[in-house]
Amino acid sequence: MDIAGLLTSAGINIAICVVLLSLYSILRKQPSNASVYFTRKLVPEPVKWSDPFCLERFVPSASWIMRAWQATDEEILAAGGVDAVVFMRIVVFSIRVFIIAAMICILLVLPVNYYGQDMQHKQIHAESLEVFTIGNVKEGSKWFWTHCLALYVISCSACVLLYFEYESITKMRLAHITGSPPSPSHFTVLVRGIPWSQDHSYSESVEKFFSTYYPASYVSHQMVYRAGTVDKLMKDAEKMYRVLKTVEPQCREISMPCCLCGGTTHSFKVLNNEAESVKSKISDDGLQPAQREKERPAAFVFFRTRYAAVVAAQVLQSSNPMLWVTQLAPEPRDVYWSNLSIPYKQIWLRKIATLLGAIVFMFVFLVPVTFVQGLTQLDQLSHTFPFLKGILRQQLSVFSSVRDIPTQLAKAVPTQATFFTTYVLSSGWASLSFEVIQLFALLRNVFRKFILRIKEESSNCALSFPYHTEIPRLLLFGLLGFTCSVMAPLILPFLLVYFFLAFLVYRNQILHVYVSKYESGGQFWPIVHNTTIFSLVLTQIIALGVFGIKRSPVASGFTIPLIFFTLLFNEYCRQRFSPVFKRSPAQVLIEMDRQDEQCGRVEEIYDQLRSAYCQFPLIARDLSTSQDLSTAGNTWQNKDQGSSQDPESLKPGNQLVKLNE
Amino acid sequence: MDIAGLLTSAGINIAICVVLLSLYSILRKQPSNASVYFTRKLVPEPVKWSDPFCLERFVPSASWIMRAWQATDEEILAAGGVDAVVFMRIVVFSIRVFIIAAMICILLVLPVNYYGQDMQHKQIHAESLEVFTIGNVKEGSKWFWTHCLALYVISCSACVLLYFEYESITKMRLAHITGSPPSPSHFTVLVRGIPWSQDHSYSESVEKFFSTYYPASYVSHQMVYRAGTVDKLMKDAEKMYRVLKTVEPQCREISMPCCLCGGTTHSFKVLNNEAESVKSKISDDGLQPAQREKERPAAFVFFRTRYAAVVAAQVLQSSNPMLWVTQLAPEPRDVYWSNLSIPYKQIWLRKIATLLGAIVFMFVFLVPVTFVQGLTQLDQLSHTFPFLKGILRQQLSVFSSVRDIPTQLAKAVPTQATFFTTYVLSSGWASLSFEVIQLFALLRNVFRKFILRIKEESSNCALSFPYHTEIPRLLLFGLLGFTCSVMAPLILPFLLVYFFLAFLVYRNQILHVYVSKYESGGQFWPIVHNTTIFSLVLTQIIALGVFGIKRSPVASGFTIPLIFFTLLFNEYCRQRFSPVFKRSPAQVLIEMDRQDEQCGRVEEIYDQLRSAYCQFPLIARDLSTSQDLSTAGNTWQNKDQGSSQDPESLKPGNQLVKLNE
Repeated sequence: MDIAGLLTSAGINIAICVVLLSLYSILRKQPSNASVYFTRKLVPEPVKWSDPFCLERFVPSASWIMRAWQATDEEILAAGGVDAVVFMRIVVFSIRVFIIAAMICILLVLPVNYYGQDMQHKQIHAESLEVFTIGNVKEGSKWFWTHCLALYVISCSACVLLYFEYESITKMRLAHITGSPPSPSHFTVLVRGIPWSQDHSYSESVEKFFSTYYPASYVSHQMVYRAGTVDKLMKDAEKMYRVLKTVEPQCREISMPCCLCGGTTHSFKVLNNEAESVKSKISDDGLQPAQREKERPAAFVFFRTRYAAVVAAQVLQSSNPMLWVTQLAPEPRDVYWSNLSIPYKQIWLRKIATLLGAIVFMFVFLVPVTFVQGLTQLDQLSHTFPFLKGILRQQLSVFSSVRDIPTQLAKAVPTQATFFTTYVLSSGWASLSFEVIQLFALLRNVFRKFILRIKEESSNCALSFPYHTEIPRLLLFGLLGFTCSVMAPLILPFLLVYFFLAFLVYRNQILHVYVSKYESGGQFWPIVHNTTIFSLVLTQIIALGVFGIKRSPVASGFTIPLIFFTLLFNEYCRQRFSPVFKRSPAQVLIEMDRQDEQCGRVEEIYDQLRSAYCQFPLIARDLSTSQDLSTAGNTWQNKDQGSSQDPESLKPGNQLVKLNE
Repeated sequence: MDIAGLLTSAGINIAICVVLLSLYSILRKQPSNASVYFTRKLVPEPVKWSDPFCLERFVPSASWIMRAWQATDEEILAAGGVDAVVFMRIVVFSIRVFIIAAMICILLVLPVNYYGQDMQHKQIHAESLEVFTIGNVKEGSKWFWTHCLALYVISCSACVLLYFEYESITKMRLAHITGSPPSPSHFTVLVRGIPWSQDHSYSESVEKFFSTYYPASYVSHQMVYRAGTVDKLMKDAEKMYRVLKTVEPQCREISMPCCLCGGTTHSFKVLNNEAESVKSKISDDGLQPAQREKERPAAFVFFRTRYAAVVAAQVLQSSNPMLWVTQLAPEPRDVYWSNLSIPYKQIWLRKIATLLGAIVFMFVFLVPVTFVQGLTQLDQLSHTFPFLKGILRQQLSVFSSVRDIPTQLAKAVPTQATFFTTYVLSSGWASLSFEVIQLFALLRNVFRKFILRIKEESSNCALSFPYHTEIPRLLLFGLLGFTCSVMAPLILPFLLVYFFLAFLVYRNQILHVYVSKYESGGQFWPIVHNTTIFSLVLTQIIALGVFGIKRSPVASGFTIPLIFFTLLFNEYCRQRFSPVFKRSPAQVLIEMDRQDEQCGRVEEIYDQLRSAYCQFPLIARDLSTSQDLSTAGNTWQNKDQGSSQDPESLKPGNQLVKLNE
């Protein structure tokens, strides 16, 4: 590809982006799209164009860009939590480091590459992109010190920036831990592998174990039950009830043909608040004696303080490490109850199976990736099909030889730089445009409003931020930026545009679209840090390989200590910061516990604990609303005496939806 | 090498062993050697040949073999502790697994190897050893299932035996933990990285931190001090005093020329029990105000219970993970005080430097190993020196190519089998003979008794068992056995002889020679287990490579699941057993703490704690003997009030040996 080709490609992509962003700025002004673009509704955006023929409504504007630019970190924190702020720090870090990289590489490295060989240069627009890569510098050139210097500057600035980011994010995380209100998960430990005993039920065993070994801090516990068919039916019924409620909210008793049961007519009777029938179920069903068999060897154990819970979660409990396995409990809404029924002895096997599956999937995924990359090498396309075999061999050979990896990468990266540049241009920019325009939500909204003709706004369409796709994407672009920076600096301006756009788009989305359903307190930052260090070291190894191929022993010699010091820096950060992201400091926890005690919040917290982890939330909700259910009420209240007769004793009766055939 | 050569080599080695063992059986009967061969003196061995001309004293006998054979596990446990029993389990495991391997490999695999090619066999004694290896089986042979079957039998029996060993050793370890008397190290946590404060001394900071966050369990603490030049002089003087005391035990004041100080005459005055001078030192020296500067940011903190200490050691204390770093304290006699003065911030760097040093040393060590192995390939010796380069390349190429490792190993192992067989014969057998004869101790004894003419037995010559050399040796022979078993089964009989001899020799040494100075409770078993699994997997990978070279896809296909299941078995053991070897179970610790409380041992334990960790033990000993030193005595007794005015306040005066110029 030559410069003209690259500029054409850039032009096309810029045009697409401008069109999409303009379209977005128009679409967001339409009141009918408020459920797509202002899902959060937290930030009061004036949707004032209610007049359908107002011209301003159909004119693109940059107001959203201004809004996103001007938003402070406090607003982001309020809107998206610590996770959102940390996510934006990745973008800011990338912008900073690649501005430095672009400055040194374009001012220093690019001219050296361009004039690297004694050759007749064409006109600039007809110049091949290869001329701008390190591949154009002749062997044994004395100018490789520029590349080495650029590498040093990039590595050092990346490390310094990373250090300050890590430090400030650690502080933010600690402030988040200290400032967060008491959550049931802080006081709760998930216990698995409760040993089977002939004499006691699992519940009695838990009671006995924790009141023996943690008498001062143990409060009570909540068993996990096997979800039977009745429970499954209940869940299906509940789901169905919700669907029907949306369609006809007033209807309390619906008769409709059930499509699942082969044509016979069923009627669902919603027994909401009809606690009497629940009561009768308890006495009629005769399930209570069989309850013990329904208990699974897992339980949530509640402790008096956060510190006690953390200690119980970290200490090895039993001399058989597969019994009484403890860990801090997940948040109540994150519990996947049917997984808790799995015996602990199987879990390690399942984990290994998952790992193997992931590895196999990764290798399978190599095939399409290789195919796409093969397409960029046009001369190979002439071989039609046999080329696939060849490419798969050219690509997989990287894995075959340890010593040759730097050389292999050094050969591959400069030649692949064109591909990566166009990848940033197309996939990167376009993904942001599509992110902001929320195509799927938009189409769903159109479908609801103009085809189904539902007028009311659906309340549960708010999405949470897709960290699981967006963080890897940012890190991938970071990796491309680092590895290509010194080898083929032309990628950097396009990458910077991507990161600037990402800065605006993600801030806009955090402020207006995504709802934060979960808060990890920036726990993913160590992954980001490690990946960035990996990218840096990979860049340095590739540079080492290139300097080797180009016979520049001095540059190679200076690169080796750089690799060493980068790894040393990473190790320091691992020692200095990362433990806080894995475990909560005792000092902080104890202070928080004491504050709770001073504020007199302790009783309130215990009350929350009792109702937080409930496998069958429907009955719990119903029981708490029905005041006349004396038996159940008593059992529920008895819990603070450390008795094990917990609400699970009510469990067999929790059939709120009766299936009348 | 041919069979005749091997048998000759075996004959020579057997002769050497018989001579050495006979010599041992004579030497041990000499009363003058009791300090060499009966250092333990725990087992009452009748040394009845006091008549210098008794013939029986000079006739070799096998009585020691009978004694070693008949000793029970209880005797070994009593003599050498859990470590010794676990060590003997390695030998027993090796004997068992290699008996099975020898049976299947010699009965099934060896004939297949021998008749593996259509060839005219020579007379058996002239047959090359190569004929007995898998290299002799022709490509694509249908008989490779025998090798595959042998591999399965060996792997399965090794895994089953390993499982039962791991289980019984875990039980033994737990019994050891439960049964061991209270030790100060159980109750003590070593704290490093105490933060510097303008207002408090380090000691006050420790006091404040632990009485704030561990008010219920914190007892007191003991600071670490910078060892000054005076302390170093003191230690030298003490050493010198001991040497002089051995020569002339009655002498209380000695005048002798000091060879270190260039000819001037010095006199040492031993001020044992002269507490007055110590007292005067305290008041005269004026060091007490400077004491705060001598405190280092490290301390031993004592807790009320074992469980509290374990919790404090495991929990992350501070929001800066490099401050208040806790770990369980080493045993008092294992403390290397000058290391504790190192700031914690430097430790990770020093650890990395040590690791790098170890890696460099390993690579440097490759050179002589390669040279020795090169010597076995006689045809290469003709090239004199350039061959070294070639060999280093032939050896290091193993590291260069990941995919080719199985093939490389598959080529190398059968050809190296002769070398390994002779290695077992010579180095293995001989090392055991020299182990039993204790050449160094014997020579020293002869030197003392017949040249220095010292009559009394030296009391501190008892050695502790050299686990650090003997465990790797056993594991190396295990590795050789596994990797060669299927490839070149002729090694197995020689290896079995080695392990049988090791069984007798090590039992004898544990019973009579070595003193157990340290007890880890079999903590090294997971290393043994992992190394054995590594050996098994390596064997399977090599077999995979050989089956690949020999074009036996069926055998290769069957080997792959075997590798997978071996790794799975290892993972299971890691989950099931290994945590007990890293952390003590809370259940066990709490039970022990309660027992202490019931037995009323608690006060006694606290008293022990106070004196256990003392950086300057001389003064502690002296102070406890001198009753009139009231100031010091008071400070010492005040400790149980949790006060930090600990014996360290006496420290500057602890100069027991005065150096008079």
